[in-house]
Amino acid sequence: MTLKPLGDRVLVKPAPKEEKTSSGLYISSGAQEKPQKGEVVAVGAGKLDDKGERIAVDVKAGDQVFYGKFGGNEVKVDGEDYLLLRADDIYAIIED
Amino acid sequence: MTLKPLGDRVLVKPAPKEEKTSSGLYISSGAQEKPQKGEVVAVGAGKLDDKGERIAVDVKAGDQVFYGKFGGNEVKVDGEDYLLLRADDIYAIIED
Amino acid sequence: MTLKPLGDRVLVKPAPKEEKTSSGLYISSGAQEKPQKGEVVAVGAGKLDDKGERIAVDVKAGDQVFYGKFGGNEVKVDGEDYLLLRADDIYAIIED
Amino acid sequence: MTLKPLGDRVLVKPAPKEEKTSSGLYISSGAQEKPQKGEVVAVGAGKLDDKGERIAVDVKAGDQVFYGKFGGNEVKVDGEDYLLLRADDIYAIIED
Amino acid sequence: MTLKPLGDRVLVKPAPKEEKTSSGLYISSGAQEKPQKGEVVAVGAGKLDDKGERIAVDVKAGDQVFYGKFGGNEVKVDGEDYLLLRADDIYAIIED
Amino acid sequence: MTLKPLGDRVLVKPAPKEEKTSSGLYISSGAQEKPQKGEVVAVGAGKLDDKGERIAVDVKAGDQVFYGKFGGNEVKVDGEDYLLLRADDIYAIIED
Amino acid sequence: MTLKPLGDRVLVKPAPKEEKTSSGLYISSGAQEKPQKGEVVAVGAGKLDDKGERIAVDVKAGDQVFYGKFGGNEVKVDGEDYLLLRADDIYAIIED
Repeated sequence: MTLKPLGDRVLVKPAPKEEKTSSGLYISSGAQEKPQKGEVVAVGAGKLDDKGERIAVDVKAGDQVFYGKFGGNEVKVDGEDYLLLRADDIYAIIED
Repeated sequence: MTLKPLGDRVLVKPAPKEEKTSSGLYISSGAQEKPQKGEVVAVGAGKLDDKGERIAVDVKAGDQVFYGKFGGNEVKVDGEDYLLLRADDIYAIIED
Repeated sequence: MTLKPLGDRVLVKPAPKEEKTSSGLYISSGAQEKPQKGEVVAVGAGKLDDKGERIAVDVKAGDQVFYGKFGGNEVKVDGEDYLLLRADDIYAIIED
Repeated sequence: MTLKPLGDRVLVKPAPKEEKTSSGLYISSGAQEKPQKGEVVAVGAGKLDDKGERIAVDVKAGDQVFYGKFGGNEVKVDGEDYLLLRADDIYAIIED
Repeated sequence: MTLKPLGDRVLVKPAPKEEKTSSGLYISSGAQEKPQKGEVVAVGAGKLDDKGERIAVDVKAGDQVFYGKFGGNEVKVDGEDYLLLRADDIYAIIED
Repeated sequence: MTLKPLGDRVLVKPAPKEEKTSSGLYISSGAQEKPQKGEVVAVGAGKLDDKGERIAVDVKAGDQVFYGKFGGNEVKVDGEDYLLLRADDIYAIIED
Repeated sequence: MTLKPLGDRVLVKPAPKEEKTSSGLYISSGAQEKPQKGEVVAVGAGKLDDKGERIAVDVKAGDQVFYGKFGGNEVKVDGEDYLLLRADDIYAIIED
């Protein structure tokens, strides 16, 4: 079973919690917004602008990203945990 | 009796609760938003844009979808439970 | 005495409460929004868009509709109860 | 002394309270909004749209109207009570 | 010392409180908004619209006006009390 | 060290508190907004409009202004106190 | 590992706390917003405007800036602390 996000929504596979602490990477935030790290699995076609054209999402499948948890929804597919986020809730791409 | 949703509204038949847990699919969320799974039964013609043209809804009858319960309304038609959602409250299409 | 709704407002005659339960139709919702069933009696000319043209309302007199009570106003005309709703508070047309 | 409303504001002379109950007309609403009945006395030139042109108000002096009290302001002119409302707070025209 | 209001702001000289009651004019309102009477002293050039042109303010110096106190600021200039209001907080022009 | 405000932000040097009371000028306001007097030190290039052009700020360096404290930020540069305000939080220019 | 901010987001390296007090520079603010000083490390390509073109961010890598902490997110990369801010949360460029 696969998920095809709609509009400006993005499906993200969160990084395992143990890897996140061992890599020395740590994100803190206030109570309302908890940014996290993961890999983009699928992206929607984008929102429609005023002319009826799609506004392409800034990330693509395979991108390693930082995102805010607030506003997103956890979903379990075939036993694995994923997140459905809006594109604007993704803050940065991680490049090595 | 059938329902014809208006504007960007979508009529959804929620999946039976027993099937949802047996399939290993599970969605958790905060207190305000409870995403769920179901099948699209009917869609509205879409909202009007600034030029007076309809913005087509991204889902169609028969689509299996994930959606947020927050904002929608439960309706019982001929003894069966349905949901009336706005198109933007539908997060992703489920493909097998 | 008759009422001519203004803008995107719609005058609705709510279905009698006894018919609603006997027909097996039931709508539940949260505390803020109580959807109901009724018949459209009159509609406004619609809101003005950016070009000064009217955006026609999606329902017409005689339509059987589901609507949200939140935001509307009850009005008694010649001894009968009616509702004044905004067009966007009408969720779906009921077809038999 | 007369009042000339500005923008989309409308000056309304509320119907006497005794007439309202004797005519069998009654409007109820929630705590925030108390719709009432009255006669339009004067209307503003309308709000300016994006092109700098006036958006005409949907009512005119002499119209009998239903309106929401919430947001309006009571004003006493030459010993009589009036209301200053925004045009959008007027819900319907009463026709006999 | 004089004040030159900016944008859509308007400088108003409130009418003396004794004149207001002696003339039989009285305005009441809810707790959040307290309309008052006064004379326009100076007006700003108006807000800029989307094309970069000024939207002229609907009142001019010398106009007797009704206004809402909520949102405005009291200012004392050379020992006299004035109010700085947004143009939209002025409800009507008083004509004799 | 100097500060170059960005967008529609304005750097203001508040008038000394003793001068404000000795000049007979006094501004009172509600709890949320405390207008004050000062001199403009530097202005940003303005916000971008829909066409990508800058909307010039209505004040310039050297202007004596009234402003609302709410929303601004105090900053100490080389031992002196300044304020960073949005242009819209400046209400009027003071002319002698 | 490097971070590439998305949209109108900006990556900032906060100035060390000891330098901030020793330099005589101090920023105070209310409880909700805590402005700070730092150096821009990377900027996003900017938000899309209505025509689908990018609105360039007003700062560039290397700029010394004042910013508001409210709304931003702290991130630790390779053991060092950074901030991810929206461009509008950056108030001024510091020039020596």
